[in-house]
Amino acid sequence: MPLDDAAQDTLFRSARTHNKWTATPVPDAMLQALYDLLKMGPTSANSSPARFVFVRTPEAKERLRPALSAGNLEKTMAAPVTVIVAYDPRFYDELPKLFPHADARSWFAGNEALAEETAFRNGTLQGAYLIMAARALGLDCGPMSGFDRAKVDEAFFAGRGWKSNFLVNLGCSRARPGSISTRPASSPDSSSLIRQA
Amino acid sequence: MPLDDAAQDTLFRSARTHNKWTATPVPDAMLQALYDLLKMGPTSANSSPARFVFVRTPEAKERLRPALSAGNLEKTMAAPVTVIVAYDPRFYDELPKLFPHADARSWFAGNEALAEETAFRNGTLQGAYLIMAARALGLDCGPMSGFDRAKVDEAFFAGRGWKSNFLVNLGCSRARPGSISTRPASSPDSSSLIRQA
Repeated sequence: MPLDDAAQDTLFRSARTHNKWTATPVPDAMLQALYDLLKMGPTSANSSPARFVFVRTPEAKERLRPALSAGNLEKTMAAPVTVIVAYDPRFYDELPKLFPHADARSWFAGNEALAEETAFRNGTLQGAYLIMAARALGLDCGPMSGFDRAKVDEAFFAGRGWKSNFLVNLGCSRARPGSISTRPASSPDSSSLIRQA
Repeated sequence: MPLDDAAQDTLFRSARTHNKWTATPVPDAMLQALYDLLKMGPTSANSSPARFVFVRTPEAKERLRPALSAGNLEKTMAAPVTVIVAYDPRFYDELPKLFPHADARSWFAGNEALAEETAFRNGTLQGAYLIMAARALGLDCGPMSGFDRAKVDEAFFAGRGWKSNFLVNLGCSRARPGSISTRPASSPDSSSLIRQA
Protein backbone atom coordinates (compact mmCIF):
# COMPACT_ATOMS: atom_id res chain seq x y z
CA MET A 1 0.00 0.00 0.00
CA PRO A 2 1.42 3.39 -0.94
CA LEU A 3 1.50 6.11 1.69
CA ASP A 4 -1.05 8.88 1.31
CA ASP A 5 0.01 12.31 0.10
CA ALA A 6 0.11 13.79 3.60
CA ALA A 7 2.56 11.14 4.79
CA GLN A 8 4.71 11.63 1.68
CA ASP A 9 4.66 15.37 2.42
CA THR A 10 5.82 14.76 5.99
CA LEU A 11 8.72 12.62 4.83
CA PHE A 12 9.81 14.53 1.75
CA ARG A 13 7.88 17.44 0.25
CA SER A 14 7.20 19.66 3.23
CA ALA A 15 10.11 18.52 5.38
CA ARG A 16 12.95 20.99 5.85
CA THR A 17 16.35 21.15 7.50
CA HIS A 18 15.71 22.97 10.76
CA ASN A 19 17.98 25.35 12.67
CA LYS A 20 15.89 26.94 15.43
CA TRP A 21 14.65 24.79 18.27
CA THR A 22 12.05 24.99 20.99
CA ALA A 23 13.04 23.82 24.47
CA THR A 24 10.64 20.86 24.26
CA PRO A 25 12.72 17.83 25.22
CA VAL A 26 12.77 14.58 23.28
CA PRO A 27 11.88 11.83 25.76
CA ASP A 28 13.77 8.56 26.08
CA ALA A 29 10.79 6.63 24.72
CA MET A 30 10.90 8.70 21.53
CA LEU A 31 14.60 7.97 21.02
CA GLN A 32 13.95 4.27 21.57
CA ALA A 33 11.08 4.36 19.05
CA LEU A 34 13.38 6.16 16.62
CA TYR A 35 16.04 3.49 16.93
CA ASP A 36 13.49 0.69 16.72
CA LEU A 37 12.31 2.03 13.36
CA LEU A 38 15.64 2.90 11.77
CA LYS A 39 17.23 -0.42 12.67
CA MET A 40 14.76 -2.13 10.32
CA GLY A 41 16.19 -0.35 7.26
CA PRO A 42 18.18 -2.56 4.90
CA THR A 43 21.96 -2.89 5.07
CA SER A 44 24.35 -5.15 3.24
CA ALA A 45 24.19 -8.62 4.86
CA ASN A 46 22.27 -6.99 7.73
CA SER A 47 25.65 -5.57 8.77
CA SER A 48 24.14 -2.56 10.57
CA PRO A 49 27.51 -0.80 10.97
CA ALA A 50 26.12 2.52 12.20
CA ARG A 51 26.58 3.54 15.80
CA PHE A 52 24.55 6.36 17.32
CA VAL A 53 25.30 8.67 20.22
CA PHE A 54 22.41 10.78 21.46
CA VAL A 55 24.01 13.91 22.95
CA ARG A 56 21.61 15.63 25.31
CA THR A 57 23.22 16.73 28.58
CA PRO A 58 24.96 20.12 28.90
CA GLU A 59 28.18 18.26 29.78
CA ALA A 60 28.06 16.17 26.61
CA LYS A 61 27.18 19.21 24.51
CA GLU A 62 30.30 20.92 25.87
CA ARG A 63 32.40 17.97 24.73
CA LEU A 64 30.93 18.43 21.26
CA ARG A 65 31.37 22.22 21.14
CA PRO A 66 35.08 22.41 20.14
CA ALA A 67 34.42 20.19 17.12
CA LEU A 68 31.60 22.29 15.65
CA SER A 69 32.06 24.71 12.78
CA ALA A 70 31.05 28.31 13.52
CA GLY A 71 27.91 28.08 11.41
CA ASN A 72 26.72 24.97 13.22
CA LEU A 73 27.62 26.00 16.78
CA GLU A 74 24.64 27.92 18.14
CA LYS A 75 21.91 25.72 16.68
CA THR A 76 23.61 22.54 17.82
CA MET A 77 24.11 23.76 21.37
CA ALA A 78 20.42 24.74 21.43
CA ALA A 79 19.02 21.52 19.96
CA PRO A 80 17.32 19.16 22.44
CA VAL A 81 19.31 16.24 20.99
CA THR A 82 22.29 16.01 18.67
CA VAL A 83 22.85 12.57 17.22
CA ILE A 84 26.40 11.61 16.33
CA VAL A 85 25.91 9.20 13.42
CA ALA A 86 29.06 7.08 13.48
CA TYR A 87 30.14 3.70 12.19
CA ASP A 88 32.25 0.84 13.42
CA PRO A 89 34.89 -0.29 10.89
CA ARG A 90 35.00 -3.58 12.84
CA PHE A 91 31.27 -4.13 12.36
CA TYR A 92 32.02 -7.56 10.87
CA ASP A 93 32.66 -9.04 14.30
CA GLU A 94 28.87 -8.90 14.82
CA LEU A 95 28.04 -10.71 11.58
CA PRO A 96 27.97 -14.23 13.06
CA LYS A 97 25.01 -12.94 15.10
CA LEU A 98 23.41 -10.56 12.56
CA PHE A 99 23.83 -12.75 9.46
CA PRO A 100 24.18 -16.34 10.65
CA HIS A 101 23.29 -17.82 7.21
CA ALA A 102 26.86 -17.57 5.94
CA ASP A 103 30.40 -16.92 7.12
CA ALA A 104 30.00 -13.25 6.30
CA ARG A 105 32.68 -12.18 8.75
CA SER A 106 35.31 -13.73 6.48
CA TRP A 107 34.26 -11.43 3.61
CA PHE A 108 35.59 -8.43 5.55
CA ALA A 109 38.10 -9.59 8.16
CA GLY A 110 41.57 -8.95 6.74
CA ASN A 111 40.25 -6.66 3.99
CA GLU A 112 40.38 -3.27 5.67
CA ALA A 113 39.53 -1.25 2.55
CA LEU A 114 36.36 -3.27 1.85
CA ALA A 115 35.35 -3.13 5.52
CA GLU A 116 35.81 0.65 5.62
CA GLU A 117 33.87 1.19 2.39
CA THR A 118 31.06 -1.11 3.55
CA ALA A 119 30.89 0.53 6.97
CA PHE A 120 30.80 4.03 5.51
CA ARG A 121 28.20 3.19 2.84
CA ASN A 122 25.87 1.22 5.09
CA GLY A 123 26.38 3.44 8.12
CA THR A 124 25.38 6.38 5.92
CA LEU A 125 22.28 4.53 4.70
CA GLN A 126 21.34 4.06 8.35
CA GLY A 127 21.86 7.77 8.98
CA ALA A 128 19.36 8.49 6.22
CA TYR A 129 16.96 5.97 7.77
CA LEU A 130 17.33 7.90 11.05
CA ILE A 131 16.30 11.14 9.30
CA MET A 132 13.30 9.46 7.68
CA ALA A 133 12.30 7.66 10.88
CA ALA A 134 12.53 10.90 12.87
CA ARG A 135 10.25 12.64 10.40
CA ALA A 136 7.89 9.63 10.50
CA LEU A 137 7.67 10.12 14.29
CA GLY A 138 6.95 13.83 13.96
CA LEU A 139 10.41 15.06 14.91
CA ASP A 140 12.24 17.84 13.08
CA CYS A 141 15.78 17.21 11.87
CA GLY A 142 18.86 19.25 11.14
CA PRO A 143 21.59 17.08 9.58
CA MET A 144 25.10 18.55 9.21
CA SER A 145 28.55 17.70 7.97
CA GLY A 146 30.26 20.87 9.23
CA PHE A 147 32.36 19.61 12.13
CA ASP A 148 35.80 18.20 12.87
CA ARG A 149 35.44 14.44 12.66
CA ALA A 150 38.79 13.75 14.33
CA LYS A 151 37.87 15.91 17.33
CA VAL A 152 34.52 14.15 17.74
CA ASP A 153 36.20 10.76 17.49
CA GLU A 154 38.72 11.76 20.15
CA ALA A 155 36.10 13.22 22.48
CA PHE A 156 33.55 10.41 22.17
CA PHE A 157 35.19 7.29 20.73
CA ALA A 158 38.76 7.27 22.06
CA GLY A 159 39.98 3.69 22.24
CA ARG A 160 36.78 2.33 20.69
CA GLY A 161 37.61 2.74 17.00
CA TRP A 162 34.23 4.10 15.90
CA LYS A 163 34.30 6.92 13.34
CA SER A 164 31.94 9.88 13.26
CA ASN A 165 30.14 10.38 9.95
CA PHE A 166 27.65 13.21 10.31
CA LEU A 167 25.48 14.94 12.93
CA VAL A 168 21.71 15.31 13.16
CA ASN A 169 20.01 17.81 15.46
CA LEU A 170 16.60 16.59 16.62
CA GLY A 171 13.69 18.28 18.34
CA CYS A 172 10.72 20.51 17.67
CA SER A 173 11.52 23.37 15.38
CA ARG A 174 10.45 26.95 16.01
CA ALA A 175 10.14 27.22 12.24
CA ARG A 176 7.60 24.66 11.22
CA PRO A 177 6.89 24.22 7.52
CA GLY A 178 5.04 27.20 6.16
CA SER A 179 7.05 29.75 8.07
CA ILE A 180 10.77 29.65 7.35
CA SER A 181 12.26 27.40 4.71
CA THR A 182 15.94 26.66 4.58
CA ARG A 183 15.60 24.83 1.31
CA PRO A 184 17.13 26.54 -1.70
CA ALA A 185 14.73 27.28 -4.48
CA SER A 186 16.65 25.13 -6.94
CA SER A 187 16.10 21.40 -6.91
CA PRO A 188 18.16 19.23 -9.15
CA ASP A 189 16.58 19.06 -12.57
CA SER A 190 15.48 15.50 -13.22
CA SER A 191 16.18 15.78 -16.92
CA SER A 192 19.87 16.23 -16.19
CA LEU A 193 20.09 13.44 -13.64
CA ILE A 194 18.01 10.55 -14.90
CA ARG A 195 19.23 8.46 -17.75
CA GLN A 196 17.01 5.63 -18.81
CA ALA A 197 19.12 2.83 -20.13
CA MET B 1 2.28 15.14 12.38
CA PRO B 2 3.68 11.67 12.92
CA LEU B 3 2.84 8.97 10.39
CA ASP B 4 0.34 6.36 11.51
CA ASP B 5 1.49 2.86 12.40
CA ALA B 6 0.50 1.41 9.02
CA ALA B 7 2.68 3.91 7.16
CA GLN B 8 5.58 3.26 9.56
CA ASP B 9 5.08 -0.45 8.89
CA THR B 10 5.23 0.11 5.12
CA LEU B 11 8.47 2.06 5.40
CA PHE B 12 10.25 0.05 8.08
CA ARG B 13 8.65 -2.73 10.08
CA SER B 14 7.02 -4.89 7.44
CA ALA B 15 9.27 -3.90 4.54
CA ARG B 16 11.71 -6.55 3.31
CA THR B 17 14.48 -6.92 0.78
CA HIS B 18 12.84 -8.67 -2.16
CA ASN B 19 14.34 -11.15 -4.60
CA LYS B 20 11.46 -12.58 -6.64
CA TRP B 21 9.61 -10.34 -9.05
CA THR B 22 6.35 -10.35 -10.93
CA ALA B 23 6.38 -9.21 -14.56
CA THR B 24 4.34 -6.12 -13.71
CA PRO B 25 6.25 -3.21 -15.24
CA VAL B 26 7.05 0.02 -13.41
CA PRO B 27 5.68 2.83 -15.56
CA ASP B 28 7.61 6.00 -16.43
CA ALA B 29 5.25 8.08 -14.32
CA MET B 30 6.12 5.99 -11.26
CA LEU B 31 9.86 6.49 -11.82
CA GLN B 32 9.31 10.22 -12.21
CA ALA B 33 7.26 10.30 -8.98
CA LEU B 34 10.03 8.33 -7.27
CA TYR B 35 12.66 10.83 -8.32
CA ASP B 36 10.46 13.79 -7.44
CA LEU B 37 10.16 12.48 -3.87
CA LEU B 38 13.75 11.39 -3.27
CA LYS B 39 15.24 14.61 -4.62
CA MET B 40 13.63 16.45 -1.67
CA GLY B 41 15.76 14.56 0.88
CA PRO B 42 18.46 16.64 2.56
CA THR B 43 22.05 16.72 1.32
CA SER B 44 25.00 18.82 2.40
CA ALA B 45 24.61 22.29 0.85
CA ASN B 46 21.88 20.81 -1.35
CA SER B 47 24.72 19.21 -3.28
CA SER B 48 22.59 16.31 -4.55
CA PRO B 49 25.58 14.35 -5.90
CA ALA B 50 23.69 11.12 -6.63
CA ARG B 51 23.07 10.11 -10.21
CA PHE B 52 20.51 7.43 -11.08
CA VAL B 53 20.28 5.10 -14.05
CA PHE B 54 17.03 3.18 -14.43
CA VAL B 55 17.94 -0.02 -16.25
CA ARG B 56 14.88 -1.58 -17.86
CA THR B 57 15.43 -2.74 -21.42
CA PRO B 58 16.80 -6.24 -22.20
CA GLU B 59 19.76 -4.58 -23.95
CA ALA B 60 20.65 -2.49 -20.90
CA LYS B 61 20.22 -5.50 -18.60
CA GLU B 62 22.72 -7.38 -20.77
CA ARG B 63 25.25 -4.58 -20.27
CA LEU B 64 24.77 -4.99 -16.54
CA ARG B 65 24.97 -8.78 -16.54
CA PRO B 66 28.79 -9.23 -16.59
CA ALA B 67 29.15 -7.00 -13.53
CA LEU B 68 26.73 -8.93 -11.31
CA SER B 69 27.81 -11.39 -8.67
CA ALA B 70 26.44 -14.92 -9.05
CA GLY B 71 24.03 -14.51 -6.14
CA ASN B 72 22.56 -11.32 -7.59
CA LEU B 73 22.37 -12.37 -11.24
CA GLU B 74 19.02 -14.08 -11.69
CA LYS B 75 16.95 -11.74 -9.53
CA THR B 76 18.47 -8.66 -11.16
CA MET B 77 17.87 -9.89 -14.68
CA ALA B 78 14.25 -10.61 -13.69
CA ALA B 79 13.53 -7.32 -11.92
CA PRO B 80 11.35 -4.86 -13.86
CA VAL B 81 13.84 -2.08 -13.04
CA THR B 82 17.37 -2.06 -11.66
CA VAL B 83 18.53 1.33 -10.45
CA ILE B 84 22.24 2.07 -10.59
CA VAL B 85 22.73 4.48 -7.69
CA ALA B 86 25.87 6.39 -8.65
CA TYR B 87 27.48 9.71 -7.75
CA ASP B 88 29.33 12.43 -9.56
CA PRO B 89 32.63 13.37 -7.88
CA ARG B 90 32.41 16.67 -9.81
CA PHE B 91 29.00 17.44 -8.29
CA TYR B 92 30.35 20.80 -7.12
CA ASP B 93 30.11 22.27 -10.60
CA GLU B 94 26.32 22.37 -10.03
CA LEU B 95 26.54 24.20 -6.70
CA PRO B 96 26.28 27.73 -8.12
CA LYS B 97 22.79 26.66 -9.24
CA LEU B 98 21.84 24.35 -6.34
CA PHE B 99 23.24 26.47 -3.50
CA PRO B 100 23.48 30.05 -4.77
CA HIS B 101 23.68 31.55 -1.23
CA ALA B 102 27.45 31.08 -1.01
CA ASP B 103 30.45 30.22 -3.13
CA ALA B 104 30.07 26.56 -2.20
CA ARG B 105 31.87 25.36 -5.32
CA SER B 106 35.13 26.72 -3.88
CA TRP B 107 34.78 24.45 -0.82
CA PHE B 108 35.32 21.40 -3.02
CA ALA B 109 37.06 22.42 -6.24
CA GLY B 110 40.74 21.56 -5.85
CA ASN B 111 40.10 19.33 -2.81
CA GLU B 112 39.55 15.96 -4.44
CA ALA B 113 39.49 13.97 -1.18
CA LEU B 114 36.78 16.17 0.36
CA ALA B 115 34.78 16.13 -2.88
CA GLU B 116 34.94 12.33 -3.07
CA GLU B 117 33.95 11.88 0.58
CA THR B 118 31.08 14.36 0.24
CA ALA B 119 29.86 12.77 -2.99
CA PHE B 120 29.96 9.26 -1.52
CA ARG B 121 28.27 10.25 1.76
CA ASN B 122 25.53 12.37 0.25
CA GLY B 123 25.05 10.16 -2.79
CA THR B 124 24.52 7.27 -0.38
CA LEU B 125 22.00 9.28 1.66
CA GLN B 126 20.10 9.86 -1.59
CA GLY B 127 20.21 6.13 -2.30
CA ALA B 128 18.51 5.54 1.04
CA TYR B 129 15.94 8.21 0.21
CA LEU B 130 15.27 6.30 -3.02
CA ILE B 131 14.56 3.12 -1.03
CA MET B 132 12.24 4.96 1.36
CA ALA B 133 10.50 6.84 -1.45
CA ALA B 134 9.97 3.62 -3.39
CA ARG B 135 8.37 2.00 -0.37
CA ALA B 136 6.26 5.13 0.17
CA LEU B 137 4.98 4.72 -3.39
CA GLY B 138 4.12 1.06 -2.84
CA LEU B 139 7.10 -0.40 -4.72
CA ASP B 140 9.18 -3.30 -3.45
CA CYS B 141 12.96 -2.90 -3.28
CA GLY B 142 15.99 -5.14 -3.43
CA PRO B 143 19.17 -3.15 -2.72
CA MET B 144 22.55 -4.84 -3.32
CA SER B 145 26.26 -4.23 -3.12
CA GLY B 146 27.34 -7.48 -4.78
CA PHE B 147 28.63 -6.33 -8.17
CA ASP B 148 31.79 -5.13 -9.85
CA ARG B 149 31.75 -1.34 -9.58
CA ALA B 150 34.53 -0.86 -12.13
CA LYS B 151 32.67 -2.94 -14.73
CA VAL B 152 29.46 -0.97 -14.21
CA ASP B 153 31.34 2.31 -14.48
CA GLU B 154 32.96 1.18 -17.72
CA ALA B 155 29.69 -0.10 -19.19
CA PHE B 156 27.52 2.87 -18.22
CA PHE B 157 29.69 5.86 -17.34
CA ALA B 158 32.74 5.67 -19.62
CA GLY B 159 34.08 9.17 -20.15
CA ARG B 160 31.54 10.69 -17.79
CA GLY B 161 33.32 10.23 -14.47
CA TRP B 162 30.33 9.06 -12.45
CA LYS B 163 30.94 6.22 -10.00
CA SER B 164 28.51 3.42 -9.22
CA ASN B 165 27.68 3.02 -5.53
CA PHE B 166 25.02 0.33 -5.16
CA LEU B 167 22.09 -1.22 -7.03
CA VAL B 168 18.39 -1.37 -6.20
CA ASN B 169 15.96 -3.73 -7.91
CA LEU B 170 12.45 -2.27 -8.09
CA GLY B 171 9.08 -3.78 -8.88
CA CYS B 172 6.27 -5.83 -7.42
CA SER B 173 7.51 -8.76 -5.40
CA ARG B 174 6.07 -12.25 -5.68
CA ALA B 175 6.83 -12.54 -1.97
CA ARG B 176 4.84 -9.85 -0.30
CA PRO B 177 5.24 -9.44 3.48
CA GLY B 178 3.63 -12.29 5.29
CA SER B 179 4.82 -14.94 2.90
CA ILE B 180 8.61 -15.08 2.56
CA SER B 181 10.94 -12.97 4.64
CA THR B 182 14.54 -12.44 3.69
CA ARG B 183 15.29 -10.60 6.89
CA PRO B 184 17.51 -12.41 9.37
CA ALA B 185 15.94 -13.07 12.71
CA SER B 186 18.56 -11.05 14.56
CA SER B 187 18.24 -7.30 14.67
CA PRO B 188 21.00 -5.27 16.22
CA ASP B 189 20.46 -5.04 19.95
CA SER B 190 19.80 -1.44 20.84
CA SER B 191 21.51 -1.78 24.19
CA SER B 192 24.78 -2.46 22.46
CA LEU B 193 24.47 0.31 19.92
CA ILE B 194 23.03 3.33 21.67
CA ARG B 195 25.12 5.32 24.05
CA GLN B 196 23.47 8.26 25.66
CA ALA B 197 26.04 10.91 26.34
